[in-house]
Amino acid sequence: MVSRFRDLAGAALTASVVVGPGDDAAALRTRDDRLLLLTCDMLVEGVHFRREWASGEDIGWKAMAVNLSDIAAMGGEPAAAVASIAMPGDLPAQLASEIAQGLIAAASAHGAALAGGDLVGSPGPVVVDVALTGWVEEGSMLRRHGARPGDAICVTGLLGASAAGLICLREGLTDDGCPELARLLQAHRRPTPRLREAQAIARARLATAMMDLSDGLADDLPRLCAESGVGARIACERLPVDSASASLAGRIGTDALEMGLTGGEDYELLFTCPPAAVSDLAGAVSAATGTAVTVIGEIVEKAGVCFLGPDGRAITSGQGFDHFALGLLH
Amino acid sequence: MVSRFRDLAGAALTASVVVGPGDDAAALRTRDDRLLLLTCDMLVEGVHFRREWASGEDIGWKAMAVNLSDIAAMGGEPAAAVASIAMPGDLPAQLASEIAQGLIAAASAHGAALAGGDLVGSPGPVVVDVALTGWVEEGSMLRRHGARPGDAICVTGLLGASAAGLICLREGLTDDGCPELARLLQAHRRPTPRLREAQAIARARLATAMMDLSDGLADDLPRLCAESGVGARIACERLPVDSASASLAGRIGTDALEMGLTGGEDYELLFTCPPAAVSDLAGAVSAATGTAVTVIGEIVEKAGVCFLGPDGRAITSGQGFDHFALGLLH
Repeated sequence: MVSRFRDLAGAALTASVVVGPGDDAAALRTRDDRLLLLTCDMLVEGVHFRREWASGEDIGWKAMAVNLSDIAAMGGEPAAAVASIAMPGDLPAQLASEIAQGLIAAASAHGAALAGGDLVGSPGPVVVDVALTGWVEEGSMLRRHGARPGDAICVTGLLGASAAGLICLREGLTDDGCPELARLLQAHRRPTPRLREAQAIARARLATAMMDLSDGLADDLPRLCAESGVGARIACERLPVDSASASLAGRIGTDALEMGLTGGEDYELLFTCPPAAVSDLAGAVSAATGTAVTVIGEIVEKAGVCFLGPDGRAITSGQGFDHFALGLLH
Repeated sequence: MVSRFRDLAGAALTASVVVGPGDDAAALRTRDDRLLLLTCDMLVEGVHFRREWASGEDIGWKAMAVNLSDIAAMGGEPAAAVASIAMPGDLPAQLASEIAQGLIAAASAHGAALAGGDLVGSPGPVVVDVALTGWVEEGSMLRRHGARPGDAICVTGLLGASAAGLICLREGLTDDGCPELARLLQAHRRPTPRLREAQAIARARLATAMMDLSDGLADDLPRLCAESGVGARIACERLPVDSASASLAGRIGTDALEMGLTGGEDYELLFTCPPAAVSDLAGAVSAATGTAVTVIGEIVEKAGVCFLGPDGRAITSGQGFDHFALGLLH
């Protein structure tokens, strides 16, 4: 379906569209050396959030954050957003205000603004759709294609925290003053887009491809590889799985590795670069933000993504994991 | 609610936002003398369309057209759009393709492109949200504020055709080869955004305020007046009510005037200008597009909108009409 959309839209692009459907954001030519970035993401109640688990402000924050993350993934700086909200007339009007406050809070925290919107009635679930613009120097823009055999595969930060937060919500675990649980819940409810990290990577002009991790490494890395026409080998013991997430996995009899591989909504950055550039890039990110960069594998020529266990044998290839957090109804 | 949103967002705008919430589109400063326009509009099944009455392509066309109309209303040229579609998993995937085709057809017909999108599952009605960017020379941009006492109030084209098309659908009238009915149905299903007309008006730099007619004159004119801090007097006998719409009104025992005043979704342009500029503006629009411009009243100092009947007495003031086409569920 997505590829069908891409074919349809791709056949009718105008000359000003430098990047069309299929990447984290579209890019349009302007009259100066910057490109205009444009992205959208829609959150649907019951699929992407539940009102029992998230306040209106949480919902708004997340709707904006996932779009900020898309602009980050292109190496850009966010500018202004518009947001549409559909909600039943029998819900309190206060909910729309709270969602707007969350949208604005996330935008403001990252140098962007909510510049307009549309509020409509609906007989169905609450729907929040955000479209966000951004700017990127053409020479700094990073795309999903560009990864080359031999490149190191890197991620920022830690994986699995958002999935663990979702598990807490599903299991009815409250933080009860435990800072680790509170952090997992926060990671799920109020993800932090890696804008400054992404800009540090983009400015260094050493990375070859980048995207954000929204659906989990096991789903997202194959997309980057497909766009780049390459394959990948991941050394699973290198995955920077969040420690509280790993410990929660132990408590509920789940594999910590699986949480790191398939937990969605971390919004960390996945990028590739020549091995010789790793230390410069990791240094630039750390100096700008304090966020760690971890090398988790390498790009190979042969198509397909191989996840290798500690014994060096493939755990599985590409799809086939259970998914924690791709959607509440999935 | 909308004003609450405006207050919330307005307090957190960044310096680059020249026009924030409350106009047809937001406007952002760029590095050249053009402003970037950004708008969004969301259509919800059962509120804004019914699948029994509109094909997927009609739905997509309309979702794009209403956004193109917002860019027109600012005097801008559309550039690229992103679209999010939510739909239940049990609907045929073909529907999403058809909606995408409609989105692309409307964009392509007006020099714009669909540059990206998001397709998500939903337990609720089909929702289509489009966000569209555009460009406008700063000196040519038209806003809802700016109308001054003494200005002539003008509309492009004819009013009431879309409302009449909706009545046909409600009453189960088919065109049966009748070109007039077919035209009314087309006006409702596939509205034409007045981009070229709007650009001719904007380029002339003679108009003082402009907006598009999405909810009907009786609702929209008070908005323009409120933004401009003025009032208006409309001579109702001057309203250019579509003749087929008027004749349908007669057949079903409705007032043609009411259809012209309160019928929504015409997407004609409502603008104001000094009386001396009317003939130049009407000439520019007609020369560029063949579309007629009609003077329907004048801006006055005193707040409030007065609709005057043929006898010169007020029919009603501002709100208070029955509404034909503000929404299927309204």
